Amino acid sequence: MSIKKYLPILRWLPNYRLAIFNQDLMAAMIVTVMLVPQSLAYAMLAGLPPEVGLYASIAPLLIYALFGTSSALSVGPVAVIALMTLTTAGNIVSTEGDAYLTTVILLTFISGIMLTLMGLFRLGFLANFLSHPVISGFITASAIIIAVSQLKHLLGVSVSGHNLPELLLALVKALPELNLATLLMGSGALLFLYASRRWPLLAQLGFSHGVASGVGRLAPILAVVVTTWLAAQFSLIEQGVAVVGDVPAGLPPLVMPSTDVSLWQQLWVGALLISIVGFVESVSVGQTLAAKRRERIDPDQELIALGCANLGAAVSTGMPVTGGFSRSVVNFDAGARTPAAGALTALGILVVILWFTPLLQTLPIATLAATIIIAVLSLIDTHAIKHTWRYSKADFSAMLLTVVITLLQGVEAGILAGVGLSLALHIYRTSRPHTAVVGRVMGTEHFRNIERHKVETSANLMIIRVDESLYFANARYLEDQVQTLVSESPELKHLVISCQAVNLIDASALDSLESINARLKDTGVKLHLAEVKGPVMDRLARVDFPRRLSGEIFMSTFDAWQQLKN
Amino acid sequence: MSIKKYLPILRWLPNYRLAIFNQDLMAAMIVTVMLVPQSLAYAMLAGLPPEVGLYASIAPLLIYALFGTSSALSVGPVAVIALMTLTTAGNIVSTEGDAYLTTVILLTFISGIMLTLMGLFRLGFLANFLSHPVISGFITASAIIIAVSQLKHLLGVSVSGHNLPELLLALVKALPELNLATLLMGSGALLFLYASRRWPLLAQLGFSHGVASGVGRLAPILAVVVTTWLAAQFSLIEQGVAVVGDVPAGLPPLVMPSTDVSLWQQLWVGALLISIVGFVESVSVGQTLAAKRRERIDPDQELIALGCANLGAAVSTGMPVTGGFSRSVVNFDAGARTPAAGALTALGILVVILWFTPLLQTLPIATLAATIIIAVLSLIDTHAIKHTWRYSKADFSAMLLTVVITLLQGVEAGILAGVGLSLALHIYRTSRPHTAVVGRVMGTEHFRNIERHKVETSANLMIIRVDESLYFANARYLEDQVQTLVSESPELKHLVISCQAVNLIDASALDSLESINARLKDTGVKLHLAEVKGPVMDRLARVDFPRRLSGEIFMSTFDAWQQLKN
Repeated sequence: MSIKKYLPILRWLPNYRLAIFNQDLMAAMIVTVMLVPQSLAYAMLAGLPPEVGLYASIAPLLIYALFGTSSALSVGPVAVIALMTLTTAGNIVSTEGDAYLTTVILLTFISGIMLTLMGLFRLGFLANFLSHPVISGFITASAIIIAVSQLKHLLGVSVSGHNLPELLLALVKALPELNLATLLMGSGALLFLYASRRWPLLAQLGFSHGVASGVGRLAPILAVVVTTWLAAQFSLIEQGVAVVGDVPAGLPPLVMPSTDVSLWQQLWVGALLISIVGFVESVSVGQTLAAKRRERIDPDQELIALGCANLGAAVSTGMPVTGGFSRSVVNFDAGARTPAAGALTALGILVVILWFTPLLQTLPIATLAATIIIAVLSLIDTHAIKHTWRYSKADFSAMLLTVVITLLQGVEAGILAGVGLSLALHIYRTSRPHTAVVGRVMGTEHFRNIERHKVETSANLMIIRVDESLYFANARYLEDQVQTLVSESPELKHLVISCQAVNLIDASALDSLESINARLKDTGVKLHLAEVKGPVMDRLARVDFPRRLSGEIFMSTFDAWQQLKN
Repeated sequence: MSIKKYLPILRWLPNYRLAIFNQDLMAAMIVTVMLVPQSLAYAMLAGLPPEVGLYASIAPLLIYALFGTSSALSVGPVAVIALMTLTTAGNIVSTEGDAYLTTVILLTFISGIMLTLMGLFRLGFLANFLSHPVISGFITASAIIIAVSQLKHLLGVSVSGHNLPELLLALVKALPELNLATLLMGSGALLFLYASRRWPLLAQLGFSHGVASGVGRLAPILAVVVTTWLAAQFSLIEQGVAVVGDVPAGLPPLVMPSTDVSLWQQLWVGALLISIVGFVESVSVGQTLAAKRRERIDPDQELIALGCANLGAAVSTGMPVTGGFSRSVVNFDAGARTPAAGALTALGILVVILWFTPLLQTLPIATLAATIIIAVLSLIDTHAIKHTWRYSKADFSAMLLTVVITLLQGVEAGILAGVGLSLALHIYRTSRPHTAVVGRVMGTEHFRNIERHKVETSANLMIIRVDESLYFANARYLEDQVQTLVSESPELKHLVISCQAVNLIDASALDSLESINARLKDTGVKLHLAEVKGPVMDRLARVDFPRRLSGEIFMSTFDAWQQLKN
């Protein structure tokens, strides 16, 4: 039972059959072909040697197959996480030296530990700090930064910059040095890839939607094959076209992550953000795909699975990994039935790295840049932006702030600002809970807002209904409001707070009630409560609040009315 | 109307009479006598020359009298803010050089701007980020740090340290160098002050409680007078007793705050924390005192008043100020009726600084340290700690974390960790809203939890009631729960979410509803809503959600039941 919970492979492996294997194998072959250029490209985007991307596509996939609960999630390097890796590690050491790879490995390792611990301690709720507008704004901004950062490879120039204005300026300055052969090759690949997404030719030719979109997604490998052949055939390297070059063949080298304490201290914030963004992305893809088959995934176990996958990536010279959206959809559409599809994909990549790396030697960097640009452009969600604008200006402002700060200040600052604003908006929204002064509907036991209904009231008794749990964000507001109401009612002798909608009174709100009680006592007004829920009452009793209360606690508002109205 | 709002002095000055003036003058004289040693002591605590404390007790009080809404609040230097000033500015430049005063002045200025802007933009709700356990833990820990940091003055040794372990270690190491005369003088003052708080002698001698506690609070000035006289009479300076020394007479020098951009960048976080802690302290004292007279204060106007007071402090060579607890209570008890009492106190301090500074020359530093220690020990709130432990372990853990991190890592880290944990706890608590699958109470239009009541249900229809607003922190939970319920009900055709308790659906929750809708559609289940509140419905309609919804939106749960149960 418990072993099955932490090792989900034990749930599906005993029932594994040949028919399922055939489906998984088919999916694995398609995903492998797709993953080779992607993993090279995302390693490049993260400022790493190309083989690191391949390494990160072996151990993590095998490990996810043991621990993961999604049947179709394809784990590996993804674009946004690669950008975050570049930003976090590149801020500490230069991407040029050997220390950079060491830093990335440690970053992957810390992220793996964090994800695993979050899973073990069931802290998946931490991902809830990221509201959808913040994630959406962050991913849109990241996609823009990634696309712009790849333009240099299309132009064949060398520039750098940490944010959008810097990058754009550097690009414009470098324009005169562009390499024509690279530009032709890169823009040709870009146009081809763009067209293959826009024109669903295969579907028009009568293929089923699934096959058409599956093959459409294989356009990148076609671009890779053609441009690699062109580069080799016409010796384009002599024309200044940059290529991947020698990719060392062989198994991923095992490494021990650094134990440099100061490096840990510098990396943990970045690792936390990478962990949370990766988890949020992965779990939403996983949930969407699981729902299509009426299955479900276990978010806490997913944290453990992603955590172990990253630990595996770290010790096998990899980079941070998570479940990627496009690959997972292809995996699902191609018929992956179990996580074994992922394990088979890992074996496919292993075959590539053992025997086929020479084929990658003349793969032009510009082609990889084109695949990245096309992949990330689909992440720019203009629909979500318009939609959020129409739906809620507050949520839109959080999204916009995230976009602007991410573009101008980088990914860490952007996401932190977005989280801060989301929380601030929430605190603001709940800091003024709806409260109403209520009176008795004539001849009944019901009480209604005195401003909306014709109700019976009494000059020496005021009944306030609070429509929200009381906690630190709104405790002070309640104090303030009671004070305002009481200062306007000189004849008042009794104040009743009706608590039927109060699910929680935290320590701050309790303090506020104590203050209200004491202040009212000073002015000769008694404070009463009514309709306090069981669990709330238990807590209040634990600190003797009912004894300190100047008034009483009534079962119902009507009881309070009957006893106090005169 | 609007001018009166922003200049509250126009509300009370027109009705000002001699009788009120007499009361204000009496209070001002008592507070002035109390404020002289306090402002010297808190300037010393903040690492500043003694006269800066006096300067900060002139302009800010005059300005608060123009803009403030509390009749008894006594603005000026306070202990916790002085410690925060030392920590923030001392982390950037050494307290030894001239740059330190410049840095403190800029800190005061930035804090003044922040408070004023927060008031103008009605951002007082930002103070709600600080839950009571966090404030209480922070103040307790600060008080411990302050008390320990003053021990060196009682011992006559010179040590320094940024956190408690460092300070304690340095003190123990310095113990052999202690100065006996200083120790005798300091501990004598300490015992006297301690005793004067504990033994309400005057009350026993028949004085009224107000007078007794008022005079009791004047014990510090008695200690100052006696030890200053002793130091002068017996030339204790030659025995190694440190004294205040020359305090320059004359008006506070006017200064322009620094425009060094990098200094602004380094100071703004500290300034923000000082602003919020200062505001929270000040507004809670103000509210308590106002309530005693059935008056009320306006928190947003208080922000403006404290902001302008700090701007005034900055340009007149002062330090950050706020409303202090003990002085305000004395001011109130002594009969202050209007903010004019504060203005008269400022005039009192002006008289002192113009003509009486020579009297302060032989005031022993040890006496000031003793007054600080006694003042801050009363801030250590062991009752609140025990109380919070009994009431709520979650709130207690936030308090404990704040105390521990403040003691070990300093004030900024402590308060930020406390705020972070409070928010995390709140997100955690609301991330799992109460939901119930409901069924129909036989023969009625009422629906109740199927687990608690004997109710009618239908295999192809499930009705879920959600008892909380839906927002980013709980959106994902709802998705997850719906998926679990649906995966367990193979015959399901219709799912109804009953929304009578949903006051808000933010953009994240809307996305979740869209996902739930799309996923259910994929599995042949229709999603319906019931009892959606008017404002929530308006928003959903704005983005055409009802049209995309696979099912319908029903006025009542009973309507949904009748139409869908078969």
